[in-house]
Amino acid sequence: MSEKIKEFERALDLAEKTSVNVSPRPTVGAVLMKNGEVIGEGITDRPPGNHAEINAIITSSRDTKGSTLFTTLEPCFHQGDTKPCVDKIIDAKVGKVVIGTIDPNPKVRGKSIKKLQNSGVTVQYPQDKICKARSQDLIEPFKHYIESGMPYVTAKIAVSLDGKIATKTGDSKWISSEQSRELVQQMRSLSDAVMIGSKTLQADSPSLSAKNKEQQPKFKVVLCSRPSIPKTYEPLISKGSKILVFCNEEPTDKKKWRNTEFIKISTKNQKLDLIKVLTELGKRKCMNLLVEGGGELLGSLIDQNLVNKIHMFIAPIFIGGGRSINSVGGSGIKLISEARKLSNIKVSQIDQDIIVSGKFI
Amino acid sequence: MSEKIKEFERALDLAEKTSVNVSPRPTVGAVLMKNGEVIGEGITDRPPGNHAEINAIITSSRDTKGSTLFTTLEPCFHQGDTKPCVDKIIDAKVGKVVIGTIDPNPKVRGKSIKKLQNSGVTVQYPQDKICKARSQDLIEPFKHYIESGMPYVTAKIAVSLDGKIATKTGDSKWISSEQSRELVQQMRSLSDAVMIGSKTLQADSPSLSAKNKEQQPKFKVVLCSRPSIPKTYEPLISKGSKILVFCNEEPTDKKKWRNTEFIKISTKNQKLDLIKVLTELGKRKCMNLLVEGGGELLGSLIDQNLVNKIHMFIAPIFIGGGRSINSVGGSGIKLISEARKLSNIKVSQIDQDIIVSGKFI
Repeated sequence: MSEKIKEFERALDLAEKTSVNVSPRPTVGAVLMKNGEVIGEGITDRPPGNHAEINAIITSSRDTKGSTLFTTLEPCFHQGDTKPCVDKIIDAKVGKVVIGTIDPNPKVRGKSIKKLQNSGVTVQYPQDKICKARSQDLIEPFKHYIESGMPYVTAKIAVSLDGKIATKTGDSKWISSEQSRELVQQMRSLSDAVMIGSKTLQADSPSLSAKNKEQQPKFKVVLCSRPSIPKTYEPLISKGSKILVFCNEEPTDKKKWRNTEFIKISTKNQKLDLIKVLTELGKRKCMNLLVEGGGELLGSLIDQNLVNKIHMFIAPIFIGGGRSINSVGGSGIKLISEARKLSNIKVSQIDQDIIVSGKFI
Repeated sequence: MSEKIKEFERALDLAEKTSVNVSPRPTVGAVLMKNGEVIGEGITDRPPGNHAEINAIITSSRDTKGSTLFTTLEPCFHQGDTKPCVDKIIDAKVGKVVIGTIDPNPKVRGKSIKKLQNSGVTVQYPQDKICKARSQDLIEPFKHYIESGMPYVTAKIAVSLDGKIATKTGDSKWISSEQSRELVQQMRSLSDAVMIGSKTLQADSPSLSAKNKEQQPKFKVVLCSRPSIPKTYEPLISKGSKILVFCNEEPTDKKKWRNTEFIKISTKNQKLDLIKVLTELGKRKCMNLLVEGGGELLGSLIDQNLVNKIHMFIAPIFIGGGRSINSVGGSGIKLISEARKLSNIKVSQIDQDIIVSGKFI
């Protein structure tokens, strides 16, 4: 492995292991080198903190003149929460910048690279394919959000080996193990919003909260054509999260709902128009959305090709029965050749459960 | 690792890697040692061939007097296809026998151990727990068959990640990859009988054949209350396999079915009595039965706790839709706490598919 790859991997590791949601910013890692020595490193902070490149420069133990900056993403060109990184890199007299991938944001997209080159800074890209792929993976939700205006949708399902999320009587607690459920709570910390359908709200009275009290999702989203308050909705109410109810008709007992905003959305084939829902969430700076079911919501999202990534927590049990509840409803497909396929599949085990993760092709 | 464990593992490896169906015999491996040297080894042959212990003795490169025999199962006591192994071991003047597990067959069950001891042969058991467990695993189908008179039931399902075996239009070809399907053909070679329900017969016109022409299952079994000949039943007809149709009413067009025996069985809750079906198969010396669906048959078997082992071939695709075909039908359960659980779970990947195997607790 060449020295360059090693340093680039260090920047990638920094970013990947920083499991904090910096939305709507992209996740970035940066390492600053001089004379074969790491002199600074950083990750992008939550807004309005610094970007990774600046953190690498300001933590530098030595003069940055003639140093090499390894950064997983093209530095920013525009004034946002912070001043443009590209100018600060030029000011710091960095000699060379190695960039993992170009910023898909039209405000940047190659402009910083040109400016660096025009200022005499050498720009290179990692030769290693895996490093490039990892750099692209890091900004996948950001890229999707920038390009579509909608959040990157990650779905989570806890399912039996025969693909059921509840028995015929509606019992679903608990299909997955305690350890799996803790992992889901961590996923919520990485999400701007967590979303469920009306049946799940009524059947499960879920909290949708993260374990870490400081890192709750900004929004808990419920989709109900005609909202009705669940018997127990106390668990849903929590500090740091606002409840958003997407509906076709606002409820008459609006005042009973606490800390809740109602957003009216039109229907499409008698269901709430999901693209409008996602666009509204995008407007509210939701870049990372975690969908936690139920089967009808997930099926409709998959039917419309709106899920980006999925985590299946498969418990090694059988529920059986024709009337038990399906993990994926919606319209479904007619031919196997039309099936939605996963790529980049990762399989792991936690406690007794099998976790299958993948991206929709 | 002590010398003894190493030699015992050699006997286990021999047996486990001998992926030939020796039903209704148990799978056994044996290694013969003298002065720290392997002087003979063997596995149990198909009837009417030799048992493993005899093969180890007759292949011995040296005089067997005072040797140690490592065998995964207690040697036989009774006259079957072959003469009692216990006598041949005593005749061969073997000094010590290390036995993996006691033969559950009431004709043997400890009798050989006593006879060996009474003849001055030292009897030991492997100290290593894993060796004991592997010895017991080897004879699991045999033990089940001896104790219940019914075949050991292994179920195989090819399923989407959302637990479906066909789309709403009935399309099921192909959910799993070509490599997975080849593995299923190997499983058929290890089975005395392969079984499906009537819907699978009608929908899929399956061959149920093994790839290896010499190692076909003895029986291809179809369960139909009222049998009706499928549009295409040519694939089902093959050399070396007889078709058994379990029914409540024999068909009027019996002559049209080729190479087929009809077995009348009573119904229970409007379905064929599965215990009677399995008992009839047991009488026909079926020790290993592979059930290949569909969902209703598998669901009914799971409802009645009649499946011993399962292999799920999970394709990383989603079929979706409330009317797509379930992998496991039947009555199902009311509460998650009542769910049928798998143990000894093994997860592997073949091509794109994920294989989850386990035993029912």
